[in-house]
Parts: sequence; C-alpha cells; structure tokens
Amino acid sequence: MTWIEDPEFAPDRPFGPQTLPYGVLGTATGPTVAVRVGKHAIPLRGLADELGPRVAELVSGDSLDPLLAAGPAAWHELRERLMELVGSDTRPSKAELIRTDWHTQLMPFTVADFADFYSSRDHAENVGRIFRRDTDPLLPNWTHLPVGYHGRSGTVVVSGTDVSRPNGQRRVSGDPTPVFGPTRRLDFEAEVGFVCGGEPASYVSPDEFADHVFGAVLVNDWSARDVQSWEYQPLGPFLAKSFATSISGWITPLAALEHARVPTTGYDHQLLDYLVEQRPWGLDLRLEVRCNDTLLSRPPFERMYWSPAQQLAHLTVNGSPVRPGDLFASGTVSGPEPDQRGCLLELSWGGSDPVTLDDGEQRTFLQDGDRVTISATAPGEHGRPVGLGDVTGTVLPAVRR
Amino acid sequence: MTWIEDPEFAPDRPFGPQTLPYGVLGTATGPTVAVRVGKHAIPLRGLADELGPRVAELVSGDSLDPLLAAGPAAWHELRERLMELVGSDTRPSKAELIRTDWHTQLMPFTVADFADFYSSRDHAENVGRIFRRDTDPLLPNWTHLPVGYHGRSGTVVVSGTDVSRPNGQRRVSGDPTPVFGPTRRLDFEAEVGFVCGGEPASYVSPDEFADHVFGAVLVNDWSARDVQSWEYQPLGPFLAKSFATSISGWITPLAALEHARVPTTGYDHQLLDYLVEQRPWGLDLRLEVRCNDTLLSRPPFERMYWSPAQQLAHLTVNGSPVRPGDLFASGTVSGPEPDQRGCLLELSWGGSDPVTLDDGEQRTFLQDGDRVTISATAPGEHGRPVGLGDVTGTVLPAVRR
Repeated sequence: MTWIEDPEFAPDRPFGPQTLPYGVLGTATGPTVAVRVGKHAIPLRGLADELGPRVAELVSGDSLDPLLAAGPAAWHELRERLMELVGSDTRPSKAELIRTDWHTQLMPFTVADFADFYSSRDHAENVGRIFRRDTDPLLPNWTHLPVGYHGRSGTVVVSGTDVSRPNGQRRVSGDPTPVFGPTRRLDFEAEVGFVCGGEPASYVSPDEFADHVFGAVLVNDWSARDVQSWEYQPLGPFLAKSFATSISGWITPLAALEHARVPTTGYDHQLLDYLVEQRPWGLDLRLEVRCNDTLLSRPPFERMYWSPAQQLAHLTVNGSPVRPGDLFASGTVSGPEPDQRGCLLELSWGGSDPVTLDDGEQRTFLQDGDRVTISATAPGEHGRPVGLGDVTGTVLPAVRR
Repeated sequence: MTWIEDPEFAPDRPFGPQTLPYGVLGTATGPTVAVRVGKHAIPLRGLADELGPRVAELVSGDSLDPLLAAGPAAWHELRERLMELVGSDTRPSKAELIRTDWHTQLMPFTVADFADFYSSRDHAENVGRIFRRDTDPLLPNWTHLPVGYHGRSGTVVVSGTDVSRPNGQRRVSGDPTPVFGPTRRLDFEAEVGFVCGGEPASYVSPDEFADHVFGAVLVNDWSARDVQSWEYQPLGPFLAKSFATSISGWITPLAALEHARVPTTGYDHQLLDYLVEQRPWGLDLRLEVRCNDTLLSRPPFERMYWSPAQQLAHLTVNGSPVRPGDLFASGTVSGPEPDQRGCLLELSWGGSDPVTLDDGEQRTFLQDGDRVTISATAPGEHGRPVGLGDVTGTVLPAVRR
C-alpha cells in the first residue's frame, strides 16, 4: 500500500508508479516542478529531506532546466528517491498531493533548438503518393539518413494552449499569383519528441543516447498545408509550421521506457557506421489521435524506420553539439493501415476523402473550434502500461491582418 | 576634440563617432559589454553617472541580452548618452579605454531563434543556373515571398571562432549510395544579419521594423555543399549548415544605418499588402569578402530583392512572435558581376572555374587553414562611412569519427 490514494496511481494504470513523469504546474504560490502520480501530482520544491539536498535543489525552481542540465546521474538519483517516496506507506511529512486538473500545466523547460524529423516510412510514402503520383514515393536520400529540418523553438507551447489559425500565402492550383489569408488546410501531425540534457556533447552515438536524453513528450506539429506547398521549395517548411508546435506538459523519463524498446524494422541498405545501433532504440509507443473526442487514428511508433537514437546521432555527427533543452521530434507517426495515419493530409488523402466524426460531421482539414488530443502508452515491466502525457490544443479563428 | 586619442576614431573612419557598435569583450575582471571607438572600446559597466542608472543597469552584465529586451526607447537613450560621452573633450572620470586587439571578442547576446533567408536575386538565379541548367532559375514562389528557413541557434558563434570542417553524408554523382566523411565542398556565404529586441510581438509590419530590430551584424553562413545537395530534399538544408554560423562580435545599431537606407530594386509583381513598405529598408551596405587576405568579392547589399523589414514581416505574419535575441540573416549577398558573388559556389561556378588567390594558389572550395573574413561599410551622414563589424573564421581539419 502507498499513502497516495488515487485509483489512477496503480501499476495497471498509465500513470502508476512505473511512470512518474515530470512537469511544471501553476499553484497559488507560483510555478512548481512536480511529479505526476495518477490524477495527482507531488510538488517537488521543499523536499530536501525526502530527495536529498543535491537533487532537491535541481527541482526547487519553476522549470526543469536545472535538472536537464544536471545529467543522467542526477536523473537516476531523483527517480530512485521518488520511487521510494511514492512507495512509502505513510505520507512523508512535507510531501503534498495536488490535483492535476485543478492546476494549469506550464511549459516544463526552455526549448533550446527544435529539430523535426520525417522518419515514418508509411508517412513519407503516403505523402509522396499524394503529391507525386507517378514516381517513387521516397526520395533517394530517405533510406540513407534521417531527413529533418530545424523548427522555431520560440513557438513551442505546452499542451492546453489554444492555437490560432495562421495567416499566410497560398496559391490555388492553376492561379498565377498567390493570395493571403487564413490557411484553409490546417492539419495536425502526431509525433513523439525527445528532450535533451546532460553535458553539451558533439556527436552522440546511438549507444550514448540515454546519457543525453532525459525523456519523451508527445508533439503536435500543427501544419498549414496550403502555405507549406507554396513556400517549401527549395529550403523546406517555414511559416507553415513555425506558428505553433504543441508538446505535452508531462515528460516521461527515458528510464520508464526501457521495457518498450524494440528492434527497428530493417533497412533497405547497409547503414553508415555512425547510424548503427548495437541495441536499437525503437520504442513500442502506441499513439491515439482524437479530434473532438472522436478517435481518428492509432499510429504505431514501433514502425519508425529511424529510431530517436539514430536521429540524435545524425543531428550531431557534423559537430553540432546537443545542449540541455534541445528538443527533437520524430515527424508524423503513421502505420500501414488507414486508421494508423498520423495527420489529416493522409487520413483525408490530400483532402479528397473526408473523415467522419462521431457526431456525423466531416473533416478534410481542421475547423475553428476543433480540439485535437494525442495520447500514448507503452508497455512497461510485466506488461504494465507506461503513459506519455497527453498533448491537446484547440483551434481559434485566425487573427485578422 | 575628443578625449579619445585614436586616429581610427575619426568621422571619416568606419568606427568613428557616427557608428558606436556594441559588443562583449573578455577582460581580466570578466566579460563586459563595451562600445567600440576606433581601435579601442569603452567598457560600459560601472558608468551609472555617465549613462544614467536606468540604461547603465542594462549594460552592466556580461551580455547585451538585457539591452535587447529593453526596447527602442532604451536603445536611443543609451546611444545619445554615449554620443555625449565620446564627444566630451575631457575623459569622464570612470570611463576607460581598452584596446580591442588585446581582448577576446565574446558572443554578444543569446541567440533565441535563427532564421536565414535567400533574398539576393543574383544569388538565387546563379544557384538556379548552376543546379538546374535548362529551366527558369527562380522557382515560382521566389518573387512573391522571402524564401527562408530556420537554422540552428546553438551553433551561432562569434567572429574569431575556428570552424572545424564538418563530417557528413555525401553522394558522388552517379554512385548509388552515399559515403561518410569530411565535406569536400566547404563554402562560406557572405550575409547580413539583424538582431531583434524589444517587446515580443506577433506580426511586425515593415514600418515597425525599427521598433524590433536593435542592429546589424555580418554573417558567414558556412555551408557544406556536397552534404547539402544530398540531404536537402524535401525539407531544406540541415546538417550542411547547422555545424557553424559565424557573426561579427560588434553589432552596429540600426540608428547608425539610417543614412544608408535606399529603395529596394523593384518587384516583378504587385506585392501582397503585408510586404509593402512605405519607406523601404533597402540598405546600401558594401561588403567585402577575403580569403587569406585576397579580396575575392564585393557583394552589394543594396540590390537585395527583399529588404530586412520585409523579411521580418514575413517571418511574423503567421503569428510567430519575434523575441529578444532572435537573429535573422539575409541569405548570400551577390551582385550581377562575377566579382560581386558572395560564395565560392558562385565564384567557382559550381567548382568548375577556380578562383586564384594573391599567392597564386587556387580554390574551388575552402581548404583547411583558410581564413575567411567579411567586412562592410555603409554611407552615413555627410558621406561618412559607417562600419559593420568584421566576421572572420579559420577552417580547422575535420574531427575524425
């Protein structure tokens, strides 16, 4: 028995004692770093006796930045202390429980650089088929390296933040000139992101992944498809993505995902050495995407062609150091089945085949007022589920320009 | 007469009293914000009596971050106080002069997001001709919007920082598979960057440019051309650029460039409203690029198709706020003449036509040990030159992986 009386804090629930994700909550006395236990959370400030002064200091502020910078030894020490704390049968004197639904979730860390990959083969092939019908859906580089690009770190927002429909240039097919206005093809992209920490390091080999990655978040990489198709040649996505990227407020520690590791799915070619994993970091994360409570899709992360460890190795192999607070995301996660597609572009096949919501409404792309929620679990030890934090956001009408 | 005895601090010299750029220098007592006067600099910490306590506080630390955040009223007040201070005929009691060449230049501010544009028509057309011989050298979107992408802010380094030749994947033309190793086509790109500050703002119209831009730096956007051509489809440049971007350590205030404003050069189409400038922010900046002291090129910034004010308007029109510390750069500056091209890709026409240095050596792309320096001046009031800080960097051999 534990002192935490919460049916959601049970080993067969995603936010039971096997998970213990970190976040930052707004409280009456200010923002506090907290660890989630079921539907509750334990604020971590002022727990020097329970956590030890060294790690308590790292979580005494209003963000996870000091903890990210401290590196893997501190991450493991904190997690062990918290496992003891939540497993105790009597409440430690200074520990308090607060309800997560009564407190605002805040951005848990300062994003340094944000990079986004494109590592689901099913997604990349679907996009290729939608836009370039009669050619190989994959470009030649795709099976040799994790294709990616840098995004805008200043517009990464925490789950629950509303997202205004962006304005931008788009060109209607056949017209010679573009028009300006609210995007008509607003989309989500269901992704998984990884939060970096530890010593700044240049070239992180796949086997050093856990020394530089603190944990995982779910990501909605909001996208304006009409803006994107007009702007992206030759330098890639820019304003079509930079207006907002939502991440879950709870960061699930990488250590909690150890039992979710799976092999990656096989490669078309011999990989270059720097991308070879001794023990792959494929992860059996099972995503669910909902629009206005209708379950639209169940994208399987285990099918990603490139693992997050390969992505980080690629990101750094040119000498670019990884810094605490760097965030990189997987790209849209899609599976081979129609109900495993991770964005509306694929689900509606380029807007030609609307999806039907539970209330009978149809969508090709998002409408104002739509709420998109991505959730996920992974298998933990003894089949217990490990949860990733939901990421949710509601579309607001465009600001008039 | 002024108390500053330095022949370079004269109205007919680029770093005379009309310029007064800001930077951060390493000193025996730590980093200090400083203003450049000729070959000297005045550390700004501890000058509360001379500058007034309010603005003195903004420049009392080890970076320009507080000044950037403070916004245009503070920028103007500081500049006026400094004009008085440097124009005095006796030395103000606490002001000291230090030699710039005896002190290390440090990164002057914390880069938030880094975006890079592609706004020289001469450059974009040359690149198009080099890579796509028989088609229109410009893609259809180029004349309608400032094409750009996000770069890696964590690898923006200050002038004087050595740059290691990056490793990466490249594919030799005709080969089915890529190889890994040091880039064989290391290039510079001569660019101009703009440093943002003031209140975070979403959509900065061209006429609000000066409220959100603190000043200008020179930029060398180092590029690995072989890595770039293999990786960049379809999401744009990534590792080919992310290993290093050098900026000058001295930031020339935008106010010093007021007399360099020129009209932009005319558009192929009616522009969409959000890109229309009432009084254009074209700037008559005259760049010079040297490799190992050989003058390679004199790129003319006045010919840029898109002004920096249009770039910032575009960057923010989708609702992405500009934050203090955001940096955006112009893209390679090139002119129509062969000796006005801003990168080796153009100067050597894709590697087919080597340039000859003053010592007789030839270059298609950079060799280890090469030193690249970009400098620039602009016309100030009464024809006095306004200087931008040099940006220089030396190529080190690749780190073995």
